[in-house]
Amino acid sequence: MKNNVRDVYDSLVGKLQEKSRLGAVLGILHWDQEVIMPKGGANSRARQIAVLSAVMHDKSTDPELKGMLDQLSQCPEAQFNEFEWSNIREAKRDYDLDTKVPRQLVKELAELSSRGHLIWAKAREDNQFSDFAPTLKRLIELKKEWADCVAPDKPAYDANIDIFERSATMAKISPLFEKLKKELIPLIRAISESGKMMDTAALTGKFPIAKQEALGRQISEDMGFSFEKGRMDVSVHPFSGGGDFTDVRITTRYSEDNFIESLYAVIHETGHGLYEQGRMQDWPDLPVSESLTMGVHESQSLFWERMIAQGRPFLTHYLPLIADTFPVQMNGVSVDGLYSAINQVAPSFIRVEADEVTYPLHVILRYEIEVGIFDGSLSVEELPEVWNQKMEEYLGLSPRTDSEGVLQDVHWSGGAFGYFPSYTLGAMYACQYYQALKKELPDIEDQVSRGELRPVREWLNKNIHRKGRLYSAEDLCQRVTGESLNSDHFIRYLKNKYGELYGINLG
Amino acid sequence: MKNNVRDVYDSLVGKLQEKSRLGAVLGILHWDQEVIMPKGGANSRARQIAVLSAVMHDKSTDPELKGMLDQLSQCPEAQFNEFEWSNIREAKRDYDLDTKVPRQLVKELAELSSRGHLIWAKAREDNQFSDFAPTLKRLIELKKEWADCVAPDKPAYDANIDIFERSATMAKISPLFEKLKKELIPLIRAISESGKMMDTAALTGKFPIAKQEALGRQISEDMGFSFEKGRMDVSVHPFSGGGDFTDVRITTRYSEDNFIESLYAVIHETGHGLYEQGRMQDWPDLPVSESLTMGVHESQSLFWERMIAQGRPFLTHYLPLIADTFPVQMNGVSVDGLYSAINQVAPSFIRVEADEVTYPLHVILRYEIEVGIFDGSLSVEELPEVWNQKMEEYLGLSPRTDSEGVLQDVHWSGGAFGYFPSYTLGAMYACQYYQALKKELPDIEDQVSRGELRPVREWLNKNIHRKGRLYSAEDLCQRVTGESLNSDHFIRYLKNKYGELYGINLG
Repeated sequence: MKNNVRDVYDSLVGKLQEKSRLGAVLGILHWDQEVIMPKGGANSRARQIAVLSAVMHDKSTDPELKGMLDQLSQCPEAQFNEFEWSNIREAKRDYDLDTKVPRQLVKELAELSSRGHLIWAKAREDNQFSDFAPTLKRLIELKKEWADCVAPDKPAYDANIDIFERSATMAKISPLFEKLKKELIPLIRAISESGKMMDTAALTGKFPIAKQEALGRQISEDMGFSFEKGRMDVSVHPFSGGGDFTDVRITTRYSEDNFIESLYAVIHETGHGLYEQGRMQDWPDLPVSESLTMGVHESQSLFWERMIAQGRPFLTHYLPLIADTFPVQMNGVSVDGLYSAINQVAPSFIRVEADEVTYPLHVILRYEIEVGIFDGSLSVEELPEVWNQKMEEYLGLSPRTDSEGVLQDVHWSGGAFGYFPSYTLGAMYACQYYQALKKELPDIEDQVSRGELRPVREWLNKNIHRKGRLYSAEDLCQRVTGESLNSDHFIRYLKNKYGELYGINLG
Repeated sequence: MKNNVRDVYDSLVGKLQEKSRLGAVLGILHWDQEVIMPKGGANSRARQIAVLSAVMHDKSTDPELKGMLDQLSQCPEAQFNEFEWSNIREAKRDYDLDTKVPRQLVKELAELSSRGHLIWAKAREDNQFSDFAPTLKRLIELKKEWADCVAPDKPAYDANIDIFERSATMAKISPLFEKLKKELIPLIRAISESGKMMDTAALTGKFPIAKQEALGRQISEDMGFSFEKGRMDVSVHPFSGGGDFTDVRITTRYSEDNFIESLYAVIHETGHGLYEQGRMQDWPDLPVSESLTMGVHESQSLFWERMIAQGRPFLTHYLPLIADTFPVQMNGVSVDGLYSAINQVAPSFIRVEADEVTYPLHVILRYEIEVGIFDGSLSVEELPEVWNQKMEEYLGLSPRTDSEGVLQDVHWSGGAFGYFPSYTLGAMYACQYYQALKKELPDIEDQVSRGELRPVREWLNKNIHRKGRLYSAEDLCQRVTGESLNSDHFIRYLKNKYGELYGINLG
């Protein structure tokens, strides 16, 4: 005899809320570990996280959950509102992901990812790719096996992408990236050949950390970050994390001789933080209210960092505050001067240090390599050489060492294949959303130049944050911008902006 | 067919470690909430803690655990070493406590304790005991029912005491407290009648918080607190908490016009923290390595605060550092001057502000009232009057309001009856341990006066911290001091110290 559908749904909700709350606890533990935990606590913390993760795994694979989901997902969709249906759909997907993979494989992956990190760190330090290669090979094998369990009908790389960028596939990403690559390579070459160097003198000198902190905090608050429901602290690598939407914690890092890095890290993480604080509040602790994909999350940080804060209107409003904060260095600096200094383009070996023009090529390089290792056309042994060839072809640079090349990123050592595309999908989403915002609020740049950031935040909140997981990232893009993700917007934006900045005619 | 005993024991260990690690997670969540959590996160945090507590309850009452414990506790003790046997014994006790009480009663107690706190806080604010009385009555009823479930053969109050002070009973406590009361009332009267007032001018003025913090941190480190395995922060009420022995977090609070309060809070909490950091390291995450009773824990904080840091040898060493820190206020202050200023005796209404001579009478008053409400000789309605009568009789003070009297403590509102005695048992243990230390290391006071605190820490570590839960608090006292807990030591110590300070002859 089947139970009443409403009762089953309510029980499902209870179980989902439990999982979500335990997830928030893990978020706090992670934040604590990165920000505040005494060094000596590391081993114990790893054991605490392992126990809590095991508890969550038990809850995620609870057979009772299966019974509920089987019953509910067979009901006619019309029996539920769209929020409820989204909860059922998302819960079913999570349950399938959590139960389709044999325990032994889960365990081996977890162990190798954890060990892999140490092996990679050592290999990078020793600048020796061959020390990491066997581990990388095994991780790829395991991730192929894993893909075969969760989505036997899909290419293995698509199954991996899907974890980070739901329903994105090679078939969708490749044409976007191809077009982008075709345009960016000549753009970067033209910038180099222009011979123009930006004057960045204003960005050098000594910037007291307390002043940097006050400046970052002020701007984060202006952007709408709530310090009643969040914190800002310091960690080795900036991140956004914490508990649920009432306890969102962002971090930055400070260096006395560079205020731009800490400030833009604050702005970037505030973008993530606003997404977290602004998610639909009426369905707390339930899947429908979660953030959508990694790419959409990144679109929120990049929207604020690049579309807003690296633009002239924002700098017009904030130059006086920045000049008040650092009067010596900013003496006589104009908005245009600051604008060109922070938007300098310079190809470099390291992805995380790249500017917005060269960054996508770092991502495309990795994407193409991941495609190759998953379809078997590339072997692990070939990676250093292929990497260096592509760097030469795309950015005109030849890495001198493995550490400067194929060993630079942490992702593969943890088994995170298919993650890189999200960075550039996020950049494209951000740009395409921004065009939609400008169409809807034609005077938004004037408003920003008067320091009115609220319309930006409210627009993002209404169109993206409060949509949670109701729609796929693609559908959301269609709803917000009237079309699917299209690299033309991003290409046009880069050509216009950098054509003007470097005084080059790009046709 | 029974399983191999060793395998069963190993499985038990795994389960106990899981519980302990989840307990450490709760410790971190609690610390976070008191020290660092944004205000807006309070409701979500309560829900996170509720889910995690439910997970722990499920693990604590796991029927598999019962099977293991039944089998193991029937084995001959000789099959295990004393550490293993202690783990089995403690686990059995916890399991019994967790399973003997019906779910409904557990739930009602948890809910009323939580609600009770709010009702008490409001009643205290409104200064109206009658608003809190019905809740208090119900809490007492529930705690009697609870006692009847966990220990039907014991008086209900003894079952309540046992939670905090294992195997202490009214039969053991009452004679100790009677003797103490008989001696303290005339001692306090004699101090009052001496007419002597200490010169506390050096303790008043402005003490910059950064300097207070540096001083506290230095002394905590000198005492042996490891900041590699711990932290020191600020909270509304000082406490010691955090994760396991590798992540011990103490707090204090600062007021610009009083450095003594923050400094002695640091020393007190460091005493707790050293117990936590110093517990037996070879049995991590297992019951045998846990701290013993509330009284023994308090003995560690009071040992450092009173026996060491309020004494002349300690002040002899630290006066120069204190004078360096606050040169204006400490100008011309002698060791004797500082010693008498911080050891002033002054009866007051509020327990938490009391000095070491009057504090025990605050505790004895509460103990006597708890005995009365549990044996039925006192009704809740009578409490304000009885409270005030006893205050008058013991300390010569008449509370003007309920808030200054019967409503001052948080404990009862959370259902914590039987907690108060631990404070004074802890003070007596501290004093008796100290006499044992002096017997074993006759020149310890000279060492302390030269700033050599390591022998103190090592003695406490060897004799108490590293004993974990191998012995009962009584047996431990016997082993460390050669006799059971005996209030004579404490009485002699107080009479000697305060007889000299106030120039009175107490025979």
